[in-house]
Amino acid sequence: YVKVLGSYPAKVTRVTPQPGTVRPPADSIESVVTAPTVAKSTGRLVDRATRAGDTVVRVGDVLVGEGFVVMAGPCSVESPEQIFAAARAVRDAGAHVLRGGVFKPRTSPYAFQGLGWEGLELLAAAGKEAGLPIVTEVMAVEQVARMAETADILQVGARNMQNFDLLRALGRVDRPVLLKRGLSSTIDEWLAAAEYILSAGNQQVILCERGIRTFESATRNTLDLSAVPVLRERTHLPIIVDPSHGTGNRRYVDPMSRAARAVGSHGLLIEVHPEPDTALSDADQSIDFRQFAALMGGLADG
Amino acid sequence: YVKVLGSYPAKVTRVTPQPGTVRPPADSIESVVTAPTVAKSTGRLVDRATRAGDTVVRVGDVLVGEGFVVMAGPCSVESPEQIFAAARAVRDAGAHVLRGGVFKPRTSPYAFQGLGWEGLELLAAAGKEAGLPIVTEVMAVEQVARMAETADILQVGARNMQNFDLLRALGRVDRPVLLKRGLSSTIDEWLAAAEYILSAGNQQVILCERGIRTFESATRNTLDLSAVPVLRERTHLPIIVDPSHGTGNRRYVDPMSRAARAVGSHGLLIEVHPEPDTALSDADQSIDFRQFAALMGGLADG
Amino acid sequence: YVKVLGSYPAKVTRVTPQPGTVRPPADSIESVVTAPTVAKSTGRLVDRATRAGDTVVRVGDVLVGEGFVVMAGPCSVESPEQIFAAARAVRDAGAHVLRGGVFKPRTSPYAFQGLGWEGLELLAAAGKEAGLPIVTEVMAVEQVARMAETADILQVGARNMQNFDLLRALGRVDRPVLLKRGLSSTIDEWLAAAEYILSAGNQQVILCERGIRTFESATRNTLDLSAVPVLRERTHLPIIVDPSHGTGNRRYVDPMSRAARAVGSHGLLIEVHPEPDTALSDADQSIDFRQFAALMGGLADG
Amino acid sequence: YVKVLGSYPAKVTRVTPQPGTVRPPADSIESVVTAPTVAKSTGRLVDRATRAGDTVVRVGDVLVGEGFVVMAGPCSVESPEQIFAAARAVRDAGAHVLRGGVFKPRTSPYAFQGLGWEGLELLAAAGKEAGLPIVTEVMAVEQVARMAETADILQVGARNMQNFDLLRALGRVDRPVLLKRGLSSTIDEWLAAAEYILSAGNQQVILCERGIRTFESATRNTLDLSAVPVLRERTHLPIIVDPSHGTGNRRYVDPMSRAARAVGSHGLLIEVHPEPDTALSDADQSIDFRQFAALMGGLADG
Repeated sequence: YVKVLGSYPAKVTRVTPQPGTVRPPADSIESVVTAPTVAKSTGRLVDRATRAGDTVVRVGDVLVGEGFVVMAGPCSVESPEQIFAAARAVRDAGAHVLRGGVFKPRTSPYAFQGLGWEGLELLAAAGKEAGLPIVTEVMAVEQVARMAETADILQVGARNMQNFDLLRALGRVDRPVLLKRGLSSTIDEWLAAAEYILSAGNQQVILCERGIRTFESATRNTLDLSAVPVLRERTHLPIIVDPSHGTGNRRYVDPMSRAARAVGSHGLLIEVHPEPDTALSDADQSIDFRQFAALMGGLADG
Repeated sequence: YVKVLGSYPAKVTRVTPQPGTVRPPADSIESVVTAPTVAKSTGRLVDRATRAGDTVVRVGDVLVGEGFVVMAGPCSVESPEQIFAAARAVRDAGAHVLRGGVFKPRTSPYAFQGLGWEGLELLAAAGKEAGLPIVTEVMAVEQVARMAETADILQVGARNMQNFDLLRALGRVDRPVLLKRGLSSTIDEWLAAAEYILSAGNQQVILCERGIRTFESATRNTLDLSAVPVLRERTHLPIIVDPSHGTGNRRYVDPMSRAARAVGSHGLLIEVHPEPDTALSDADQSIDFRQFAALMGGLADG
Repeated sequence: YVKVLGSYPAKVTRVTPQPGTVRPPADSIESVVTAPTVAKSTGRLVDRATRAGDTVVRVGDVLVGEGFVVMAGPCSVESPEQIFAAARAVRDAGAHVLRGGVFKPRTSPYAFQGLGWEGLELLAAAGKEAGLPIVTEVMAVEQVARMAETADILQVGARNMQNFDLLRALGRVDRPVLLKRGLSSTIDEWLAAAEYILSAGNQQVILCERGIRTFESATRNTLDLSAVPVLRERTHLPIIVDPSHGTGNRRYVDPMSRAARAVGSHGLLIEVHPEPDTALSDADQSIDFRQFAALMGGLADG
Repeated sequence: YVKVLGSYPAKVTRVTPQPGTVRPPADSIESVVTAPTVAKSTGRLVDRATRAGDTVVRVGDVLVGEGFVVMAGPCSVESPEQIFAAARAVRDAGAHVLRGGVFKPRTSPYAFQGLGWEGLELLAAAGKEAGLPIVTEVMAVEQVARMAETADILQVGARNMQNFDLLRALGRVDRPVLLKRGLSSTIDEWLAAAEYILSAGNQQVILCERGIRTFESATRNTLDLSAVPVLRERTHLPIIVDPSHGTGNRRYVDPMSRAARAVGSHGLLIEVHPEPDTALSDADQSIDFRQFAALMGGLADG
């Protein structure tokens, strides 16, 4: 009973899912854009009350919102060797989606900014070889169209959660969007950000809890697992958890992954690197292949 | 019914409990009190590195730090009917310790402040009938000695985590102490607070994560489950989780309890009330008997 | 030793670089863009140590970084009557720059989103009539070029502080940028965001403290005035304060404005509306003309 | 209108009970103690609405709540030389009250805990020689009575703001209480804590903002100056500001002191030490005699 697949046109979407639709017909965009007015009077599109059943986002053969989906791979795509090795390793350990950043939002302009489009080609090739769909971050409106041609899921990073122009642009493409929670965003603000995407037409949104900013410094962020039951109550959208950014420490990724599954989330987003200590970004929080395999084994046993 | 084990020397604790010891011999206190100087030079007493193996706190037949221990009962003891009913219900559902507040730290001086010593007698009687040891909060130095005669575990509330005189006083009795994390205390400050107790002689400390204060208002506090793996790495003391205060919402107690176990904690502290909506304190976050039984069943299956 | 980094006269700005500027104009952008490599080895461009004296940003006849500059006007441009009345009123009371939003970042997609380019024309006309330069928020890369033709200062809102593509785009135009602090950004992250602009060529950045997100709910945000002395120590860039967003309450705008001046900031950004209670956005925190005149009088007396 | 509010019992009052007190002395204790019930139905005793005019707390010749009062001295009393030198220096620079800690709440049990009662004698002697009343922190219920005989103002530290037994005990003595805000206490919780003191009889409470805990680490805490106008609106009690703890950095004490006065507070609490770098506690945030004299001069000019 998969309920949601494609998203266009909006009025049709929720009644009659269009199996097999990969791209929306260009002329249906306008009618979708007018949807918000209706939605506003009857509750938001993201609200659980406005939709019967849970939204399930289909990515190739993967259903996000049913079962437990693991997306894994390096923080940044760094080289062909690195990403192909990672793709095979996470696939062999049981991951369902390959992650890898190619445009990196970095606090400092002098830090490694990612391989860009060239990195995306590498990621796509590695995913294809391993038989895994891919997810990568989109940072700017002008990247959306081109990235939507190659990536299976478009990720919005925490810093861009309220980049409303980007959200609107993502609402006009027919690709699933993985929307990370902002560093200090309330759950209500997060859902309002998702509403920007849904109200522009695209119903395929996956929420991702990745930790919030608090006074505690023992972890990079404070992973707010209570957001999962709160969201499951308030919205029909699927929710996954990123324990890598949530803790910022590879030693805590395994126990927090177990907790994320136990609390009722729909999956994980995990940073895995062939040699974490040499990673160009997020070295501290990346786990290696062996650790990832152990983590997946633990989840299977749990 | 001997509930309290001595704590010195540490190596002996888990191997050969000293039956019958209710108070440490006076002359041993002094040697303990001088311990800090030594401890300081070689690391704190709370640090994992200073002790081989995990600390297990024995409370009657219950071992906190081995297996998974559930402490449950009402926020406040309100009447004989209420506490006896609660004691039986939580016992029947599988709880190991009965909780109940008799001195209540309340934000407003005009709020219900608890039944005091009379409430403690009720709690003790209910625990005895149900065959459960009891835990209750101690709010002031002058309550310590009298409360230690009746309660099996003395709880320090979040607001008193850095009430150093209270901590020192608790360090001089031979009763296990359940030390809750302060609302905005870092993990390091929390361990330093525990060190006040250990350095004064009492080694029987149980840490309890109960949520920290953040900007998010969807939950009363933000339950920081990542504190569990951080603490398991840094200290040998057992760690339990309070999902009732951590979320402030009865609907989130069950999923967060599952997560707390999955993440590796040693147990739970849960508010259970015969009729939560009529509770004199913490009504929103208390679950009823049926919900508690379901929660325990879920943990057994999980 | 005042290093006024020019951008004026506005009409000439992008065509004819001003004589005397220390930073290279149009045709030397490339050399500027390569600067980061050098800068990185010797400290960032934003760092106080890398530049002798304070940066003073010239906006028409207004010098931001010398004396005390007040920017005032409505949160949103709503109508010709409203913005022309506001322009005259804030000018008469002594304001130096007219503010007004035309593209509004709103949490909900269904909230008033601003009048857009039409609003910008109104704002520009009102500023021209009153003889005041204007500041307005730019939300997207594709708005930058067009907005730079009309607005005297381009504002980056708190939610976009780490929208790095937007920052880079602003680094390539010859217009002063007012960079607001992110809701939960550290001072270091804020300076790193400014570095994105400076490292791309544009040296004319004004920092604006507007409150951070904390647990306190008596005010909308917590205005962090200590950021002013911290920044004055760490950077040569000018710093102004926004007590309207900082408190979210019109009754606190006056005392916090006095405090902002006393602490050593270079100016204020204040929301002023003809009839605050009818404002389409930020009604609670806007002050009326009479209150603004009183505030300016108090600053003059202080 | 007379604002000085005495309390009870009059016998421990230092010199002579204040003439003109509007609150009942000795023999009306009962009526005061029963006041809360009445107060509750009509608003709290701390609320502005329940009292005409501002509360002014008299400390010797010093009136806190009128004009601008500066309390200064070392974090800890360390030696006769240190405290006598500090007393003279702060007196000569214009301070009105001498501060000095003798019982120190320290995160670690191994840190310097203060000189205790011996330190209090030194502080009292130094204050007497300099002609300044003294303020020092009381940490425990059992210290209250003895400390009230010697100290002119009893300070409650941030960690004890919700030590309700201590608050109640302070409500029963006739000494002004300086109540610091808790590290993560909302303004409402702070006023509720003050209500514990007022409702127990003692009306002489001075509130002290000392910074709240946030994610920002450039300062030790975030001094929330907006708390001053919020409090002036909500309560009749006087409010002072502690820029030393609020910033944790001596270089920011001067500008934040100016801001604290500009925002409308009733005074300052500042750490001054003969040789800050050698201080046994809070070395980073203490200023020396010369810096304090400059600060006082700046306030006089401002």
